[in-house]
Amino acid sequence: MGKKAVVLLSGGLDSATTLALAHHDGFALNTISFDYGQRHQREVDAAASLARYYHVEKQQRVTIDLRSFGASALTSDIPVPHSRSVEEMSYDIPVTYVPARNTVFLSFALAYAEVNGADDIFLGINAIDYSGYPDCRPEYLAAYEQMANLATKASTQDGRTFHFHAPLISMNKAQIIRTGIELRVPYELTWSCYEGDKLACGTCDSCLLRLNGFAEVGRKDPIKYR
Amino acid sequence: MGKKAVVLLSGGLDSATTLALAHHDGFALNTISFDYGQRHQREVDAAASLARYYHVEKQQRVTIDLRSFGASALTSDIPVPHSRSVEEMSYDIPVTYVPARNTVFLSFALAYAEVNGADDIFLGINAIDYSGYPDCRPEYLAAYEQMANLATKASTQDGRTFHFHAPLISMNKAQIIRTGIELRVPYELTWSCYEGDKLACGTCDSCLLRLNGFAEVGRKDPIKYR
Repeated sequence: MGKKAVVLLSGGLDSATTLALAHHDGFALNTISFDYGQRHQREVDAAASLARYYHVEKQQRVTIDLRSFGASALTSDIPVPHSRSVEEMSYDIPVTYVPARNTVFLSFALAYAEVNGADDIFLGINAIDYSGYPDCRPEYLAAYEQMANLATKASTQDGRTFHFHAPLISMNKAQIIRTGIELRVPYELTWSCYEGDKLACGTCDSCLLRLNGFAEVGRKDPIKYR
Repeated sequence: MGKKAVVLLSGGLDSATTLALAHHDGFALNTISFDYGQRHQREVDAAASLARYYHVEKQQRVTIDLRSFGASALTSDIPVPHSRSVEEMSYDIPVTYVPARNTVFLSFALAYAEVNGADDIFLGINAIDYSGYPDCRPEYLAAYEQMANLATKASTQDGRTFHFHAPLISMNKAQIIRTGIELRVPYELTWSCYEGDKLACGTCDSCLLRLNGFAEVGRKDPIKYR
């Protein structure tokens, strides 16, 4: 039995690759997925399929009502932007920014890790393609780790130390996809589109970054687009 | 219109006193209360009464399912301890410890503060009477504040700085009650007991700390006990 890890699994390409990396490192896998009032269930279903594929020990699904706080295209009626260039995406903090989202997610992951005896927490944040999100930067994660190790019974009384791993943090999308292809990540099970239709839209920021990444690697994205 | 504050309001004596202090400091008050699978609704009802009393601008109630993580007498079937001495209480991290509880609460408070334009967040944590809880210590809160100011659009793009205030952190229960009496806090509206009966039990850690505090101050606790 390897050491246990908790992996934040959204069901997207990045978190799938992160799950594969934790698996490759020999961790016994526990996943945590969040239903936070996204527009659709596609992400959540993708997370469940990936968890089955990787024989995850324990899946935790947490429902949180960030929606009541408003202020994001991912959780309210603000339109998701389409057909922007990668330059436009990195210009500013996107309307898809959800207030304190990763801070809320990591706090649940920390509680879950503490209870389940996992000292390692993996998340697929990325400071390159999502440069507009403050809670995807290395300095943010370092501060989070420092706080977390002062926060729990596990770390202050039981001598455990929590480590937060963000293996994709300095990769661009093409590097992530290359890593995933080497590890044979079943990308056909992932879902990245901000819209919740049957087929991915191919024009929202998330679809465009993904399609650009596959194009750069010279591979065909295995999911279907409109 | 004063500056806005977000106050974490459980409905207990400490958070009621904290709310009164934020009110006294001239802040426009917004409260956030959590339903996290406690055994009873008494706390939540007390929070609502206090919010009405202090003419709170906006009340946010958040339901979170920490219960599914288990491992606490406050959210599972582990018995709440009764009739312990204050020395016994401070000996170890109590069974009423909820994993990463304040970290989860503060993360929601941060999201709420970001969306509502509040830079000041008040919470009634206390390092004296609850010395066993790691997430009630000043070094924990300082680390949290540092992380929070790296986490949000408000603090990294809009030039806002979040301040976390824990005005009771170095007070014992008697000092808290003295402060509250000066500010005329309606302690009859508060609820501290870990049990959820019609009357407070008078023997759980929370009741005992409260009763000792009132005794030390030489006042009668206005709530009813069994």
